[in-house]
Amino acid sequence: MSLPVALDAMGGDHGAPPNVEGAVQAARAGVPVILVGDRVKLHAELGRHAGSAGLPIEVVEATDVIGMDEHASDVRSRTQASINVASRLVKEGRASAVVSMGHSGATMASALLTLGRIKGVERPAILTHLPAKGGFTTLLDAGANADVKATYYAQWARLASVYLKVVEDRDNPTVGLLSIGEEDHKGSALVLEAHGLLRALHGRGVNFHGNVEGRDIFRNTTDIVVTDGFTGNVVLKLAEGEAKVLFGWVKEALQSSLKSKLGGLLVRGALRGLAERMDPSTYGASLLIGVRGLAFIGHGSADARAVKNALLRAARAHEANLIPRLEAAFTEQQASS
Amino acid sequence: MSLPVALDAMGGDHGAPPNVEGAVQAARAGVPVILVGDRVKLHAELGRHAGSAGLPIEVVEATDVIGMDEHASDVRSRTQASINVASRLVKEGRASAVVSMGHSGATMASALLTLGRIKGVERPAILTHLPAKGGFTTLLDAGANADVKATYYAQWARLASVYLKVVEDRDNPTVGLLSIGEEDHKGSALVLEAHGLLRALHGRGVNFHGNVEGRDIFRNTTDIVVTDGFTGNVVLKLAEGEAKVLFGWVKEALQSSLKSKLGGLLVRGALRGLAERMDPSTYGASLLIGVRGLAFIGHGSADARAVKNALLRAARAHEANLIPRLEAAFTEQQASS
Repeated sequence: MSLPVALDAMGGDHGAPPNVEGAVQAARAGVPVILVGDRVKLHAELGRHAGSAGLPIEVVEATDVIGMDEHASDVRSRTQASINVASRLVKEGRASAVVSMGHSGATMASALLTLGRIKGVERPAILTHLPAKGGFTTLLDAGANADVKATYYAQWARLASVYLKVVEDRDNPTVGLLSIGEEDHKGSALVLEAHGLLRALHGRGVNFHGNVEGRDIFRNTTDIVVTDGFTGNVVLKLAEGEAKVLFGWVKEALQSSLKSKLGGLLVRGALRGLAERMDPSTYGASLLIGVRGLAFIGHGSADARAVKNALLRAARAHEANLIPRLEAAFTEQQASS
Repeated sequence: MSLPVALDAMGGDHGAPPNVEGAVQAARAGVPVILVGDRVKLHAELGRHAGSAGLPIEVVEATDVIGMDEHASDVRSRTQASINVASRLVKEGRASAVVSMGHSGATMASALLTLGRIKGVERPAILTHLPAKGGFTTLLDAGANADVKATYYAQWARLASVYLKVVEDRDNPTVGLLSIGEEDHKGSALVLEAHGLLRALHGRGVNFHGNVEGRDIFRNTTDIVVTDGFTGNVVLKLAEGEAKVLFGWVKEALQSSLKSKLGGLLVRGALRGLAERMDPSTYGASLLIGVRGLAFIGHGSADARAVKNALLRAARAHEANLIPRLEAAFTEQQASS
């Protein structure tokens, strides 16, 4: 049986219920899970799911939890916090990955402090997927680093290229550098510097396409888009917010007259598939890439479906040997340069 | 009769035709226009519009034009370029504003070199509107300054506040600082510094709401969103690109079955209004705010409707005395501080 995924079962806006429900769904799909948190609460929650007793789900006690409005820096001192207990299970080889829908900053800090960085990576980044023409675009950094150096972009491009190859089976994925014009000389001073570094990596682990613009993210011009964590976070939240408002407007339009209401009934099914495609819970959680271990961060508002998808994704990354492959790629690069 | 608007009639991806057609439409709506460019071509193009001879449209010769793929810096030496001739008409008091759908960088450079800056403004910004819940959100800088200082944000917040008050009749418009969390301490080092300056301006010409996130732009959480020109340009292009892809998906969904096709026919009218709301040509062009004179920059792909709307907007800003009001606001601020 494969190694279980450690879930910070107390994390997120809704606490244990969606976490436990998602874990039950993942376990039914064949992924073993360790629920980390208040043992009594978690067993009570598990008891509400018929047949969960026979599933590959363990409970590991954690007496503390870092709330959504507390400080990420609390991670250092609160060793019994659920996220810290979960990260240590990975460190000790008892779990394949840590997944949390809780405090993002705390999850990043805990993963980084407990698991360390991959050699050659200055700062881990949040790697996420955005729906796009023909599939999805992989974006990083989606918010871990508001202030960056040019060297980060190059490291992130390498990490994401290995990730897509190993986990998503993409052959030689293309990398775009987010800028404000396609031409090589367009961008901020920092982006121009990053452009030079990425250009130099072309053909050496990175298939560099050049600059891309905001409109290219949904067009899927490149498989990967690298940017700083400030811009990436704005992009992610804008994309989600815009989709929500636009679908709201479509709904309103379909209610605007008797004729459109009638038509709305007929197109409802077709539009539902579309709304699902735009739903962040489809991807479950984002990967904190660059950490020496698998750590996934989800939305605080995650539902059971998002939790399940995050656990499945974590198990898949582990089975694909993502971390050893990332380490190997950086070692080779070091050796050849 | 009011002062005419100078239109760089050769600018844009499609050259004279949409410019002349838009000018004819604006003139019919009561806005006099000066077409700047190749006199023979422009007269020929005007001749294709029945009844245009009686309209308040003048033609002023410019023998040169800066192409979309040329360098913005060419503006300095090519004094006979249409954008330079148009900017000079404003400087000389013969036109109320300059409007161009041509090379954005060249338009900015020409306006800045010819008209100068408003005293107290370090760098002009591109001010644009994005469709949002309940109307639109005003965003700046949409791309003029990829590298910024904290002081720019404060100046742009003041400029945009006066603009919304004077041109759009908004009383005490709210200003949000784009960041990666609502809490005051979230953001890059630069954004934190800007936050402090904006906080200090609260109640002194700026109604500062605090930080906003990417999702707030479409929610219309604040009337104005200030950000650096790199992030702002990414936001603008992402927002347009996403809307295009999403509407494409809605169209596909409506073609996916006989049932949805039938429904699609019934909802077509209702959705058309929505597509129009998302169409950038609704707003016509963006204002280069901070320049000592009215200068508007549009999409290279602008159609006649966008040109017409840009000319109407320019005339409205002039009638509202925008430039003197902006200058006065900065003088008062200087005197009171």
